[in-house]
Amino acid sequence: MSKPLKIAIAGLGTVGVGVIKIIEQHNDMIAARAGRAIEVVAVSASNRSRDRGIDITAYDWADNALDFAERDDVDLVVEVIGGSDGVAKELAQQSLEQGKSFVTANKALIAHHGAELAEIAQNNGVALRFEAAVAGGIPIIKSIGEGLAANKLTEVHGILNGTTNYMLTQMEATGKDYGEILEETKLLGYLEADPSLDLDGIDAGHKLAILSSVAFGVKTNFENVYMEGIRRIKLLDIEYAKELGYRIKLLGISRLSEQGLEQRVHPCMVPRSAPIAHVDNGFNAVVVQGDYIDRTFYEGRGAGEGPTASAVVADIIDVARGHNGSAFFVPQHLMQDVPPIDISDRIGSYYIRLHVQEQPGVIADVTATLRDQDVSLQVMLQKGSEQDGSVYIVMVTHETQEKKVTAALKQIDGLSTVIDKALAIRIENL
Amino acid sequence: MSKPLKIAIAGLGTVGVGVIKIIEQHNDMIAARAGRAIEVVAVSASNRSRDRGIDITAYDWADNALDFAERDDVDLVVEVIGGSDGVAKELAQQSLEQGKSFVTANKALIAHHGAELAEIAQNNGVALRFEAAVAGGIPIIKSIGEGLAANKLTEVHGILNGTTNYMLTQMEATGKDYGEILEETKLLGYLEADPSLDLDGIDAGHKLAILSSVAFGVKTNFENVYMEGIRRIKLLDIEYAKELGYRIKLLGISRLSEQGLEQRVHPCMVPRSAPIAHVDNGFNAVVVQGDYIDRTFYEGRGAGEGPTASAVVADIIDVARGHNGSAFFVPQHLMQDVPPIDISDRIGSYYIRLHVQEQPGVIADVTATLRDQDVSLQVMLQKGSEQDGSVYIVMVTHETQEKKVTAALKQIDGLSTVIDKALAIRIENL
Repeated sequence: MSKPLKIAIAGLGTVGVGVIKIIEQHNDMIAARAGRAIEVVAVSASNRSRDRGIDITAYDWADNALDFAERDDVDLVVEVIGGSDGVAKELAQQSLEQGKSFVTANKALIAHHGAELAEIAQNNGVALRFEAAVAGGIPIIKSIGEGLAANKLTEVHGILNGTTNYMLTQMEATGKDYGEILEETKLLGYLEADPSLDLDGIDAGHKLAILSSVAFGVKTNFENVYMEGIRRIKLLDIEYAKELGYRIKLLGISRLSEQGLEQRVHPCMVPRSAPIAHVDNGFNAVVVQGDYIDRTFYEGRGAGEGPTASAVVADIIDVARGHNGSAFFVPQHLMQDVPPIDISDRIGSYYIRLHVQEQPGVIADVTATLRDQDVSLQVMLQKGSEQDGSVYIVMVTHETQEKKVTAALKQIDGLSTVIDKALAIRIENL
Repeated sequence: MSKPLKIAIAGLGTVGVGVIKIIEQHNDMIAARAGRAIEVVAVSASNRSRDRGIDITAYDWADNALDFAERDDVDLVVEVIGGSDGVAKELAQQSLEQGKSFVTANKALIAHHGAELAEIAQNNGVALRFEAAVAGGIPIIKSIGEGLAANKLTEVHGILNGTTNYMLTQMEATGKDYGEILEETKLLGYLEADPSLDLDGIDAGHKLAILSSVAFGVKTNFENVYMEGIRRIKLLDIEYAKELGYRIKLLGISRLSEQGLEQRVHPCMVPRSAPIAHVDNGFNAVVVQGDYIDRTFYEGRGAGEGPTASAVVADIIDVARGHNGSAFFVPQHLMQDVPPIDISDRIGSYYIRLHVQEQPGVIADVTATLRDQDVSLQVMLQKGSEQDGSVYIVMVTHETQEKKVTAALKQIDGLSTVIDKALAIRIENL
């Protein structure tokens, strides 16, 4: 058996602790699978003495994780600190430059700097791996980059953020509205330190940008991911979705075509018959379409100590096995630069929810505006009035172009009878 | 870029032709991903001149595929002939002994001789790969052996045979009985040359034995897989399943515990709420459970030119990338020998369907026999009589031990009023 692979771990939060637990508990099994032992030599975190439920005294301690890059006895650095810049980025650059492989769970880092870091890894003949950055316990990066490598892939979509999926599932299950579920989710500790990452679709956007790169061999382009979160979803939208045969899911969708690359994260109405409609709570799921495999579907826990640490350790085992190919599965100079397709060019149907004062002529004004933009309706629902005399109107359009809907809603929002900004949810017949 | 990986293909049926199509069509993309070109140098099949829709004149022809093992200009041999022995096995042995990597879609070969072949591959420092042998387009071998390598896995179960899944789906969808759907499926060409492989669960058994080995690091033990097919499933069972909240699926289930290894293939009643209940027609699905990932679920097309060839080419790309580790992901001498658990020790509930003459005392006899074996019922259904005066009785037991049900049904089958052998379907609350 070869000599041990020596690793240092930067960050001892949930995931870092999980990595240590797995390596300690499955020592022999991992050595058998990797062909060599995995040995933790050093750890680093912001607070040395915090009780983490594990004994870290057996490992060298570093106050500054950047020291790992300089250590001769470290072959691989694990980064589970987080953040797209700062220490995480410096540690990645310096570790790779010093010829150490680098394994991270940091989606923001890879979405923003993946290309640059992959180039450094390539130039130094070491591995950059980030399975844990996307969809937790689902080995989706490996499945796409290796398992489906014979295919020209055309579409990747999925539920990429467990927290918002939990919130949407709970709204439907409990009949509570957004605000109440948000408070409960906060108390459970499920939200990122900056809740905007979850609630505004940014976390899912990071993951989608990474998936696009891996699936299509295109340069990571997070800047062109359209992102819209779940903050405006009300319980009544979830109820109307049910009535219309849909469920509301926050999806990331990426498609490559002759026209370019479409990358978007937003709430979707998906048919209840679609497998992805039944992925609930903290689970993530990814659908991958390619020319020879047709459609494949992957589901698993999206976050948490076990699933995320499992993905980090799988990457470490891969590196121990000597798999140190390109981070995005093709060399950087072959990664393509594909023009983005703007969300305004989307063709599809829309669910539209209006909140208006109940007055004669409101519906006439609304429908006239839609007609002027060439948007036709297949469904219009109105069910009684609210206590304050206002009324919710729900409409489903026929297939149309997003820019027409946007133009119509802009005019509708200007009507004096409209109380809230109209909400449009894209219908995706996946 | 390194020199090309030169391959020879034995077998030009659907899959062999698919492999050639992919390599020809995605030449540049594959070279980018593999880091080197993949070059087909020779092909072999039983009939040289058959029209296959592709031009094979560019490749050397061999009347005898075994010649590939001797060729100095072949790095890797692809075997898509089929059969557990004969040419397929000889070609595997000789190719590996001659230092050539070997990629196969042949589940019978690996289920029967995987351990022996893995040892030869190991001794010669080459790769033995068989992603295409299980679940077609789903990269399940790689996902388990690499993606989930950090976990102690405890269970793998799935729909592993697309043909029988198609038949069960069609019975429910069309309301036609088994015999009629069997004829239609034959006409569509979906059945193996020996239909018993599909209908009696043998094909799924081969695949399950392979999955067990990969997931648990246990020696492949196909001999101890319990197999029962779908031949006795009637439309009325499918209809009763629906009424009871279940769907009938032919599952392979493998579990590793302190007591040993349980491997079985048989029709199951699965709750309609389980994701696997909604995997229809030619799709396969696999659920993998482990200590850190919890549960992961994979779905995709189980067979056909595209998905199977995609898996073969993914293996070839892996070998081209230099990934030539152990076939079962741990070295052969570390593969464990685990005692089998007999199906008679299964604990669970059972759906039981009887066909009896409608006479006073029949139900009393049946229920007395069950009581004597300590099998208690949670449901009993009887709906009118058949035209011939016979009647179907459907029962669902409480949780019990399989051997008690077997003993009771043996006695019940001996009753003079019983027309057909009783059918028991295991209920799996997955």
